[in-house]
Amino acid sequence: MRHVRLVVQYDGAAYAGFQVQPACPTVQLVLEQALTRLLGETVRVRGASRTDAGVHACGQVITFTTENVIPLNRIVPALNALLPSDIAVTVADEVSLEFDPRRHARRKRYLYRILNRDLPSPFIGRYAWHLQGPLDVAAMQQAAVWLVGKHDFAAFCAAGGSASHTVREIFGLDVRQCREIIEISVSGNAFLYMMVRIIVGTLVEVGKGKLQPEQVGAILGGRDRGLAGATAPPCGLTLMTVEY
Amino acid sequence: MRHVRLVVQYDGAAYAGFQVQPACPTVQLVLEQALTRLLGETVRVRGASRTDAGVHACGQVITFTTENVIPLNRIVPALNALLPSDIAVTVADEVSLEFDPRRHARRKRYLYRILNRDLPSPFIGRYAWHLQGPLDVAAMQQAAVWLVGKHDFAAFCAAGGSASHTVREIFGLDVRQCREIIEISVSGNAFLYMMVRIIVGTLVEVGKGKLQPEQVGAILGGRDRGLAGATAPPCGLTLMTVEY
Repeated sequence: MRHVRLVVQYDGAAYAGFQVQPACPTVQLVLEQALTRLLGETVRVRGASRTDAGVHACGQVITFTTENVIPLNRIVPALNALLPSDIAVTVADEVSLEFDPRRHARRKRYLYRILNRDLPSPFIGRYAWHLQGPLDVAAMQQAAVWLVGKHDFAAFCAAGGSASHTVREIFGLDVRQCREIIEISVSGNAFLYMMVRIIVGTLVEVGKGKLQPEQVGAILGGRDRGLAGATAPPCGLTLMTVEY
Repeated sequence: MRHVRLVVQYDGAAYAGFQVQPACPTVQLVLEQALTRLLGETVRVRGASRTDAGVHACGQVITFTTENVIPLNRIVPALNALLPSDIAVTVADEVSLEFDPRRHARRKRYLYRILNRDLPSPFIGRYAWHLQGPLDVAAMQQAAVWLVGKHDFAAFCAAGGSASHTVREIFGLDVRQCREIIEISVSGNAFLYMMVRIIVGTLVEVGKGKLQPEQVGAILGGRDRGLAGATAPPCGLTLMTVEY
């Protein structure tokens, strides 16, 4: 039996998230159907990140076991020929049977894009949160500093997650502006349910001047979801990389 | 009564083309519904280009007449608030009642994108034709020269169009490569049904070495659709600008 790891990209707009749920199109379900067809045996996959409905991925990592002896270098082209155009596999390698793509992840990076201008865009808007009105990017950068490090992120966790505790470590949280696009890059060891999108929603409140940067430190310390900003919409979020 | 001109962008993936057809979602229908709701009167729109199913637009031009006295500068934001995220209006101005967005167009420019590499992409692939294997871009550039100018493009016209004759003028046909993306830019006074996509399909045959560049001149002269290449898929095509 081999344990195979794949790097997967997807446009999440058409999916109810990564993880299989009853009666919903999910990325995991489509991958399992394609692998089952390719390998001639029932395949279950495990993903590094349970991305939410509408969230995209450039570097999701999944694993599956198989008895099929298909050469490793055939898996990527054969699978891409079976997958719909909004899901693609970029890399396949073999890992030990003990490897767990979620538990063994040392670092995940997410990118959140904001389109900050009056006019919407059918193209950029598919992968960005369209926000009109000025945003103070310098204030957002100051606020971001409060969240870097190992903290109890209970204030940045939506109800409905499965985490046993709410302490996580953010390695980096950078806010950059390139003309009309604001990019928020977050890397950490693991993330709570909706955590990145609640962080973005809170930084946007700072950008609008509704919160002062230092208040983000108080929100973190308050450990109360009601204090943080709204959850930013999923279309702006992309899982970029998972490192082991 | 005022005659209003709008510049419209759309991601065409979800639509059966621009023009209204029975029982199909079309860009024209969605625009007419939003305008009818905004203006409180039945609105019909006329477009510069009847883009096919799945074709995108950055600069489609449409017009409509209205008795409503809404200020011109309110139309763009009010309409964008009513439109779905894959359609957006960028400009509104007033034109004479005689103005016809299709007949008065002096120049239209289309861009066709090819993603030329082994791996597909869920993101680029939404707006490009994914083609594996080498393409000889220099040969495609030589072939393109044969099509520039005023010619009978009967060989590059699909059945089903409404044109009374098949003579058209191509002002420019440029093939550019930027790493893994090949862009084919075509400008002309008007285009036959599927003409741009048949030109692209024929240039790709040249790129693959299945046709020599000078054979494109013979195909043009033969005036037989059966001689030209296959019709390239719609996802790669975007209507860029219409000039008056």
